[in-house]
Amino acid sequence: MHVTGTVILDRNFKEVETLKFSSPGEFRFKEKIEKQLRQKYPDLEELPVERKEKMLEKFRDKKFFPDFYLHNSALTRLAIKQSVSQDVLIIQAIANIQELDKAANLLVKRLREWYGWYFPEFAFRMTDNEKFTELVVSKKREELQKEIHLKETMGADLDKTQVEEILLLARQVQELYQLRKKHEDYLHQTMKTHCPNILELAGVTIGARLLELGKGLKHIALLPSSTIQLLGAEKALFRHLKTGARSPKYGVIINHPFVQKAKREDKGKMARKLADKLSLCARLDYFKGEFKALDYRRELEGELEKS
Amino acid sequence: MHVTGTVILDRNFKEVETLKFSSPGEFRFKEKIEKQLRQKYPDLEELPVERKEKMLEKFRDKKFFPDFYLHNSALTRLAIKQSVSQDVLIIQAIANIQELDKAANLLVKRLREWYGWYFPEFAFRMTDNEKFTELVVSKKREELQKEIHLKETMGADLDKTQVEEILLLARQVQELYQLRKKHEDYLHQTMKTHCPNILELAGVTIGARLLELGKGLKHIALLPSSTIQLLGAEKALFRHLKTGARSPKYGVIINHPFVQKAKREDKGKMARKLADKLSLCARLDYFKGEFKALDYRRELEGELEKS
Repeated sequence: MHVTGTVILDRNFKEVETLKFSSPGEFRFKEKIEKQLRQKYPDLEELPVERKEKMLEKFRDKKFFPDFYLHNSALTRLAIKQSVSQDVLIIQAIANIQELDKAANLLVKRLREWYGWYFPEFAFRMTDNEKFTELVVSKKREELQKEIHLKETMGADLDKTQVEEILLLARQVQELYQLRKKHEDYLHQTMKTHCPNILELAGVTIGARLLELGKGLKHIALLPSSTIQLLGAEKALFRHLKTGARSPKYGVIINHPFVQKAKREDKGKMARKLADKLSLCARLDYFKGEFKALDYRRELEGELEKS
Repeated sequence: MHVTGTVILDRNFKEVETLKFSSPGEFRFKEKIEKQLRQKYPDLEELPVERKEKMLEKFRDKKFFPDFYLHNSALTRLAIKQSVSQDVLIIQAIANIQELDKAANLLVKRLREWYGWYFPEFAFRMTDNEKFTELVVSKKREELQKEIHLKETMGADLDKTQVEEILLLARQVQELYQLRKKHEDYLHQTMKTHCPNILELAGVTIGARLLELGKGLKHIALLPSSTIQLLGAEKALFRHLKTGARSPKYGVIINHPFVQKAKREDKGKMARKLADKLSLCARLDYFKGEFKALDYRRELEGELEKS
């Protein structure tokens, strides 16, 4: 008896049994099914090459082509469907958060200028964008005037409809800020199951940025820690390689509290140590290891205090 | 009797009467009050220059300085308050609309990519951004699948929470589109009273853009029509002047339906004629003239048909 794939042939190369797949999805379990077949017929031999070639010639018939095409594309589609991993969702979410920031910044600048014609003193004094938007939405000009102890504003006295237009924009900006927070919560939840160690040590934003720049958890787990240290500093790195300018010390992890808190001369060292631990975290997360990030965190905190 | 400003002096240069202003706001009517004074004392003469100088010396006393400062700044603040014209509001509104467009475009691109992991066929087929967002918000994937006659999507089957995050973004984008429309309505209303002729001939967006680029109605009314024709094409104009490259034929009015509809070789001519009429419109609007834009529109439509 011979076998090729899921076709069983007898000594005279006649078909004895052929396992057909009822759906492209089943094809994924091809290897399992082949194994079962071999158990059923223990004395199977692999088909000789010259017979294989003869068999394959059958498929040159054009009548099979449409079927080939259909099944192949169904399989591809299935592969695409299954390629969407947590990585993809995390990368989309962090990219989205960054774009929400951009959009909110663009619109809050306009809000400041527009509102500035109505109440310039307040737009000038309140430098925090988010708080500014919130107060503009929630309080009337008269109330805000009292709060900053101003008798009379030099802003124009606009009609109600004109003020209302400004407030529409302010509400929109506020919603953008709120949406950003919601996405951050979602990102936090997703990362908690997908990469708890990275989340703990790097935080939501930096952790997700690392996943984005490192093209997914698997890839990051395979990167050397020196690369992780420089993720996000590609421009400076290539400038260094090309022109011999100073090499960059850190990429996105420059925003990490540990690097921020370190003394100026220790920042590079701290970045290296942090990247070390992050690379360990990535491996733990990818290979579903223990939760060790807290220990790493304490270790680094100790380093920080010592220096 | 002598007079200087609102101070009346007798022949011996003693003060007879001085009109004091109870508030900085009253100071705006200074000229009117001076006129009344001159009517009350018909035989007034202007104070000789040497006496004026003597009078002014009194004010060198430092005790007046804080008062000067206070009143001066109050007057300035008042001037600022009154400087906010319809022009300013229109310019803010159109700038805002453009920024809303930018923000919406930024976020809709992200939405397409993110939603593309869930339902790539739909993100690919529906090219209209606004319609795409609306359908994503209002219909489930299964419903959309039926609409485009697709049995099975190759998008990933995401959790409900994961889809919900995408929908949050979609709703936000939809709100940005809606806000844009509201602002456009507001702009339409404001322009209807402020510059009806420009609104009629140029439309909301182009009209407001012209006001923005031309720095307000007054300034536009004083511009030659050839400048109006090129508003928005400054970069190309300066390149022409500097390097001798081809001169631009039109600025923002390139988007006007008349210029769009004109034949390729007539576009420049049409832009010139349209700018001619727009410059007339601006003058009519600034000097509160009649409503002639409809006649102009018909005239240009006739030209368009003739060619």
